[in-house]
Amino acid sequence: MICPLLGPAAPDSLDDGACVPAPGEHLVLTTDSYVVSPPFFPGGDIGRLAACGTINDLAMQAAEPTYLTLGVILEEGFPLRDLARALQSLAGVLAETGMRVAAGDTKVVERGKGGGLFLNTTGLGVRRYAADGRVSSAQPGDAVLLSGTIGDHGMAVMTRREGLRMEPQILSDVAPLWGMIRELLEARLPIHALRDPTRGGLTSALCEIAAASKTGIRVRERAIPVRPPVRAACSLLGLDPLNVANEGKALIVLPAAAAERALAILRANPLGREAAIIGSVEKCPAGTALLETAIGGERQLTVPLGEELPRIC
Amino acid sequence: MICPLLGPAAPDSLDDGACVPAPGEHLVLTTDSYVVSPPFFPGGDIGRLAACGTINDLAMQAAEPTYLTLGVILEEGFPLRDLARALQSLAGVLAETGMRVAAGDTKVVERGKGGGLFLNTTGLGVRRYAADGRVSSAQPGDAVLLSGTIGDHGMAVMTRREGLRMEPQILSDVAPLWGMIRELLEARLPIHALRDPTRGGLTSALCEIAAASKTGIRVRERAIPVRPPVRAACSLLGLDPLNVANEGKALIVLPAAAAERALAILRANPLGREAAIIGSVEKCPAGTALLETAIGGERQLTVPLGEELPRIC
Repeated sequence: MICPLLGPAAPDSLDDGACVPAPGEHLVLTTDSYVVSPPFFPGGDIGRLAACGTINDLAMQAAEPTYLTLGVILEEGFPLRDLARALQSLAGVLAETGMRVAAGDTKVVERGKGGGLFLNTTGLGVRRYAADGRVSSAQPGDAVLLSGTIGDHGMAVMTRREGLRMEPQILSDVAPLWGMIRELLEARLPIHALRDPTRGGLTSALCEIAAASKTGIRVRERAIPVRPPVRAACSLLGLDPLNVANEGKALIVLPAAAAERALAILRANPLGREAAIIGSVEKCPAGTALLETAIGGERQLTVPLGEELPRIC
Repeated sequence: MICPLLGPAAPDSLDDGACVPAPGEHLVLTTDSYVVSPPFFPGGDIGRLAACGTINDLAMQAAEPTYLTLGVILEEGFPLRDLARALQSLAGVLAETGMRVAAGDTKVVERGKGGGLFLNTTGLGVRRYAADGRVSSAQPGDAVLLSGTIGDHGMAVMTRREGLRMEPQILSDVAPLWGMIRELLEARLPIHALRDPTRGGLTSALCEIAAASKTGIRVRERAIPVRPPVRAACSLLGLDPLNVANEGKALIVLPAAAAERALAILRANPLGREAAIIGSVEKCPAGTALLETAIGGERQLTVPLGEELPRIC
């Protein structure tokens, strides 16, 4: 039943192996499993999440998404119409991005031995641009751009799970970022680092860039866009929006001189309308990310410990 | 904890994305999830199974295994020493075959929402030889070779699960076949079709080749090697060894004139010592696989319905 659901993205029959022409010289491979609970949440579902997660992992390495493999692990009793909805959702994103399903596999486990629906997607991408998005390449003098509001995905899942009703409702930001990133690459902007702040949120992404590039990253809390209901839900649940997962946002690090041009390109894209320059890369303190708080203080960001948000992806 | 366990097969850090040079022009992508229960069984474990399954799927497409991505889905409470054993086992097979881990991902789900340990592996291979192993290319006049005994993997898992003790113990045949297949390819044998008789056993594989190539396949039951304890366990459980899964066997279809040379190459390899010519490809009845039974009758093979052996891989 799975192939027809995958629509234009799928070959006629989805064997567990397929031969494809090498799409280029520099390939990028990425893999992720998706176990989000619940599988349907405001603004998205596990299928859309799996497609976007893979596309965005490739995009963050400046790689054009080409082929995807799909592993489905289904618990007996999981409604087939829900499987269909999730896969149609995945197929829609792939069709939009021009990515094709190359191979697939389905396993069914007994009731009580699975979590409903798990998906694994592996992406094969090709790097056609000079930039490579490595987080280790941030340099003092760079600006740090964020493509939009943070915390939407994590709080959409979390409020649904906890039965919290926010007004207006919080929707996941889950979206495929390749189109927007490609616009930056095509403009030949000298991008030094790319990262999507998924699990662990903006905090983890900033800490990773600072640590890998041995630079000091300084961001201004006031410059970081957070929607009011996300901020309110975080307060209720005792969470910091900076630590909450996103699935449709990117951090872009590039020389300050190119920041305004990059910002204009981001804002012209529907997924980047609320993009902002949130900070800068400095020499010291090397390996550290600092937050200038809204009330004028300064604190060091540290990678969230434990699982603030289990199964948000 | 995972990278060091993967030993020489892994990069220093296993991100969920990695850039690799394109290993060749004709790539093969394959994916499979592994949910075998129990995860450790006589002769193998889920880690060895995942590595071999991926390697063999690539080998059956005449593709040299190059990179593997690894998705781990762990249920809270699954013993970490068992995870370590399974991953070391996977790493051992990869090292032996020269395949490298390119990217990985780990998800943990709550107790009761998983099946202990699930693995997903995606393989990237490169086709360097003229043969491509397509099951649709079998031709009348071809011989059908089987690389060894059948039913070992399925019955090793099944007897362990049912608590049956056989003498001698049945061991899974789980093994990486690329080395043996490469020997056939390097000898420039005119291989028409390759298939590993995994789920659904020899029966499914023969039916698939017959259907895809629109030929009639005729095999002799007496020529098909089955170990005595496997035959006995099948009798006890009411199963046909021809329908039972294998994880270290291959069907090779090539012109009859080349069959003896292929057989000699297979038998010279430790994994092919019991290889045999089990039948032939004929023109009619097109799309059908026939078994000449040991008692002189003839019956049509049909793909096993339902799940004779759930979670054997």
